[in-house]
Amino acid sequence: MRLSELGEFGFIERIRAAAVTGEGVCHGIGDDCAVLELPRGERLLTSKDLLIEGIHFQRCWTDSRRLGRKSVSVNVSDIAAMGGRPRHLYLGLGVPADFPVEELQLFMDGFLEAAAEYGACLVGGDTCRSPGPLLISVTAEGAVAAGREVRRAGAAPGQAIYVSGTLGDSALALHRHTAGQPLDPWLASRHHDPVARVALGKALSENGLARAMIDVSDGLLADLGHILKASNVGAMLEESCLPLSGPFQSALALEPQLLPLALSGGEDYELLFAAQPEQEGALQALANQLAVPITRIGTIIPAGEGLCLRNAAGEVRAADRRGFNHFAGG
Amino acid sequence: MRLSELGEFGFIERIRAAAVTGEGVCHGIGDDCAVLELPRGERLLTSKDLLIEGIHFQRCWTDSRRLGRKSVSVNVSDIAAMGGRPRHLYLGLGVPADFPVEELQLFMDGFLEAAAEYGACLVGGDTCRSPGPLLISVTAEGAVAAGREVRRAGAAPGQAIYVSGTLGDSALALHRHTAGQPLDPWLASRHHDPVARVALGKALSENGLARAMIDVSDGLLADLGHILKASNVGAMLEESCLPLSGPFQSALALEPQLLPLALSGGEDYELLFAAQPEQEGALQALANQLAVPITRIGTIIPAGEGLCLRNAAGEVRAADRRGFNHFAGG
Repeated sequence: MRLSELGEFGFIERIRAAAVTGEGVCHGIGDDCAVLELPRGERLLTSKDLLIEGIHFQRCWTDSRRLGRKSVSVNVSDIAAMGGRPRHLYLGLGVPADFPVEELQLFMDGFLEAAAEYGACLVGGDTCRSPGPLLISVTAEGAVAAGREVRRAGAAPGQAIYVSGTLGDSALALHRHTAGQPLDPWLASRHHDPVARVALGKALSENGLARAMIDVSDGLLADLGHILKASNVGAMLEESCLPLSGPFQSALALEPQLLPLALSGGEDYELLFAAQPEQEGALQALANQLAVPITRIGTIIPAGEGLCLRNAAGEVRAADRRGFNHFAGG
Repeated sequence: MRLSELGEFGFIERIRAAAVTGEGVCHGIGDDCAVLELPRGERLLTSKDLLIEGIHFQRCWTDSRRLGRKSVSVNVSDIAAMGGRPRHLYLGLGVPADFPVEELQLFMDGFLEAAAEYGACLVGGDTCRSPGPLLISVTAEGAVAAGREVRRAGAAPGQAIYVSGTLGDSALALHRHTAGQPLDPWLASRHHDPVARVALGKALSENGLARAMIDVSDGLLADLGHILKASNVGAMLEESCLPLSGPFQSALALEPQLLPLALSGGEDYELLFAAQPEQEGALQALANQLAVPITRIGTIIPAGEGLCLRNAAGEVRAADRRGFNHFAGG
């Protein structure tokens, strides 16, 4: 069945039937707006992302279910990076007229499945026809205890820089796709089905351990650059400390020129944060408890020194903090 | 200058410098999420809309500044239709690589100007390159006193049906564009720069006058159909009571076949609501005070009778409540 046969309202009715409600949702899908309540003493966190076919994804490299999951995760990751919990999701979909309803159903299955895993619910959105690419626009609303939000500003010289998980896997997967090379399924899932670090972000906020935080979406150097700019500080990164997965290390052993993927590749959706160095023990205990590895990768330094990289031989160079420029041709 | 030269972060920096902050905005543009507070006792209203070039607008029929204004108004109209006040806006933009920065600046000027007129502020969003059409995705958050939100459900037999302003102007303007006919500037502005009825919606909510409400975006019959379905009722519309503007009436005198534009044309962004008939006096007093005309156009009847239209001769026919199907080819 094609979407033009099911119709806009038929499709919305299907979504409405499948969407579950949640805490604080007075009225979800089916009115002009969703009507919501936040717990007293909590602040609203809102994030918005676009995913456009041909720019952010290729339909031939992924499947609709994982695309639905990723559409949720990349937004929820922004909430996690502020230390919040996701609550409400809104989905805007621009669908090519010949897009099969079955694929759209798989997309929605993945979207709703991921939403449920994060404890969020779909409460609104908009659907229409697209003249060309599949267009996905997601808005996520979350909550955080007032004053507990972790911002990009807040880093200070002497603090340690940490990152969760491993870096570069997603970019390596994309590199393999682009080159038409075979792809390890684990690497593929790091790109097509990333996991937002909600529990870690929330714990870092509640315990006051993270002084500045961001999620790694544009690449380690670019996103660290955002923290440095907002906090008016510099950073010294230890190249030998970058957390790299087994598959990434194997690739790197054969092709050392792949290292920049871990520095600038983007779409890791790991949490990058600055913390007081004396809290190393508390941080590692938290990481163990949550089963999310965190790695100290550098130190915040005064602004004048910029963003520096030190290699294993102790040589220091200035880092090129440019991440992915979404407006550059390609 | 092309956008690819200014770059994503250069453009975001420009927007950030131009965006003003507002009540309840703890942190706006410049973090992973906006951080916001709602007044105690108020509920959050959230709405999301997509505007896609070639589907919702043609760049050659409008100008970038009005497109920016309309992107705000169509979202704010959903908040108005619940009886709320708009507070925060989020803008997702997918921009063709060759799109001139000057046009984007005009778009943003219009967007921020309309936001300020509605008392809302831009606090977040996402920008990226589009492989084809200009893509605009807006999320609006508003607030309403808890329990005062006016939903689609709530209409009951015996209530009077009202609509604000006039119907069909926007659709007539679109009809003229499509036919390549000359266009009255007032009609053009009704299509390209509609005004969301925020003050009226808020007053109808605060005074408890509207029992069910929606904004007319898909067309009178389709949107009334949404109220009827949600409220499980029917309606009798009086064709001779439809509020038509001078330019629309002039067109209708020459081409009587244009009447369906007022019934099914869409994009009026007027408020359509049901109210107790004994409150006619209170409603007209409110309309006079706000200088927004409202017109009684029919009556809510039991569900079994469906949606009926009575013409000036007293003949009753069943109305075709289909509005615009966004997934239909064309």
